[in-house]
Amino acid sequence: MTYCVAVKLKAGLVFLSDSRTNAGLDQISTFRKMIVYEKPGDRFMCLLSAGNLSISQSVREILQVEQLADHEGGDPVTIWNARSMFDAARVLGSAVRHVFERDGEALKRAGVDFNVSMIFGGQIGSEGMRLFQVYSAGNFIEATPETPFFQIGESKYGKPVLDRVITPDTPLDEAAKCALVSMDSTLKSNLSVGLPLDLVVYEADALKTDRITCIDENNPYFRMVRNTWGQKLREVFDAIEHPVWDGSPTTVPLMGCSTRSQPLKKITNPKEKLI
Amino acid sequence: MTYCVAVKLKAGLVFLSDSRTNAGLDQISTFRKMIVYEKPGDRFMCLLSAGNLSISQSVREILQVEQLADHEGGDPVTIWNARSMFDAARVLGSAVRHVFERDGEALKRAGVDFNVSMIFGGQIGSEGMRLFQVYSAGNFIEATPETPFFQIGESKYGKPVLDRVITPDTPLDEAAKCALVSMDSTLKSNLSVGLPLDLVVYEADALKTDRITCIDENNPYFRMVRNTWGQKLREVFDAIEHPVWDGSPTTVPLMGCSTRSQPLKKITNPKEKLI
Repeated sequence: MTYCVAVKLKAGLVFLSDSRTNAGLDQISTFRKMIVYEKPGDRFMCLLSAGNLSISQSVREILQVEQLADHEGGDPVTIWNARSMFDAARVLGSAVRHVFERDGEALKRAGVDFNVSMIFGGQIGSEGMRLFQVYSAGNFIEATPETPFFQIGESKYGKPVLDRVITPDTPLDEAAKCALVSMDSTLKSNLSVGLPLDLVVYEADALKTDRITCIDENNPYFRMVRNTWGQKLREVFDAIEHPVWDGSPTTVPLMGCSTRSQPLKKITNPKEKLI
Repeated sequence: MTYCVAVKLKAGLVFLSDSRTNAGLDQISTFRKMIVYEKPGDRFMCLLSAGNLSISQSVREILQVEQLADHEGGDPVTIWNARSMFDAARVLGSAVRHVFERDGEALKRAGVDFNVSMIFGGQIGSEGMRLFQVYSAGNFIEATPETPFFQIGESKYGKPVLDRVITPDTPLDEAAKCALVSMDSTLKSNLSVGLPLDLVVYEADALKTDRITCIDENNPYFRMVRNTWGQKLREVFDAIEHPVWDGSPTTVPLMGCSTRSQPLKKITNPKEKLI
């Protein structure tokens, strides 16, 4: 599996990916899931991919040469000359469809789903930053202020902290920290996600970035985050009062509260009706 | 969906379930997923169920009368006379298979998977407590000191906190608190899990329990846990240093660390090779 997350903020974009690929538990490899496309001053784009590795690698390869007809009669549209991120996402969707045309039927015969999902975001020229999630059918959705992040792959373990922290006003470095905490929860609970990580932070309107880093088990910042988060989480957990069953007045009662629901009935013999 | 969790500790057992059932997002109902079977002084058992509601309700109904042949020629084995939790789990597995024989073929014709999963734990007589997870085929696995909890349904959101906190030595009330925090993370990130909750705490060797409570949005303890956990989590998060990109010596550097992995290469034009 894979875990990738990307966040769109007013201040910029954050992209984070792991690098574990597995075909069964006994076949685990390291493949990077992130590509940065950059023409400084003109465009910055970042692509994250999850799903079948043969499909996502093919899409990435084809994306370099993929062209869409320009409806206004100009040059064919590529990711390198697209005038908007929306057009660039259309080119990516088209690359996905080309791989489907090439491999879809043979994969189906082999009983393999055509399974790929991608996150694609960035900024082109004077247009605002945009962030897309692209599906196996080449269709895509765009992040909005209400839903400022996308996740692909093993997304559930790391979602609660994103839900709690991320808003469009979150500062860039705070969002990067949040993405790393989200990744830490995922690494802790799922073997199919693994180091090293690739982290990219893009500042709005820069049209380039030098905040790109590869994080492995020796990275001091990530080690600090992992240790601190685990330890502090435990302290917070310990600081919350335990539930007390006798409803003693000095504590927050677990029982004896008003409830509209029926208390659970015990079944005490084979003849008893359940409902 | 559903989220249920059960924990086996030296001190006892904890069971927690939500009560949301949905057939599509536009058809959401409340059904309790927990049943307590109790013959005080003789046996205490608790069943949690997830999956297709028609299947799990049928299994629960049949379980009351399900019988297995006793290989030693005695009375047929039921959950009410089984001499071990292992035998009781076999009776439950048999009930699942009976529902499969009755409904499996028709469900398959309708394109519906025979999807049910259950957690079944408790204590019978002088045997130690046991906790099982039962699958759609009626087969089951048992919790061990290395894996002292089971989850069914929407399990991923709530797994990190369990992974961090639960060991066989965790006290009962702390485990109940942990299960509630795990449920809180799940409720926060997934609409298909909902209140009220059923919580049961069983103390080792009691062979009965009165620690049974139904928790809705008015429950003061769960409200305290939700508010405190969310707020403290945020404080911990805020207290962790942000990543600093310039590697200034007063902070924990995010970049410039020794890494065996290659830094991510930027792609800067259509001709550039990806690898």
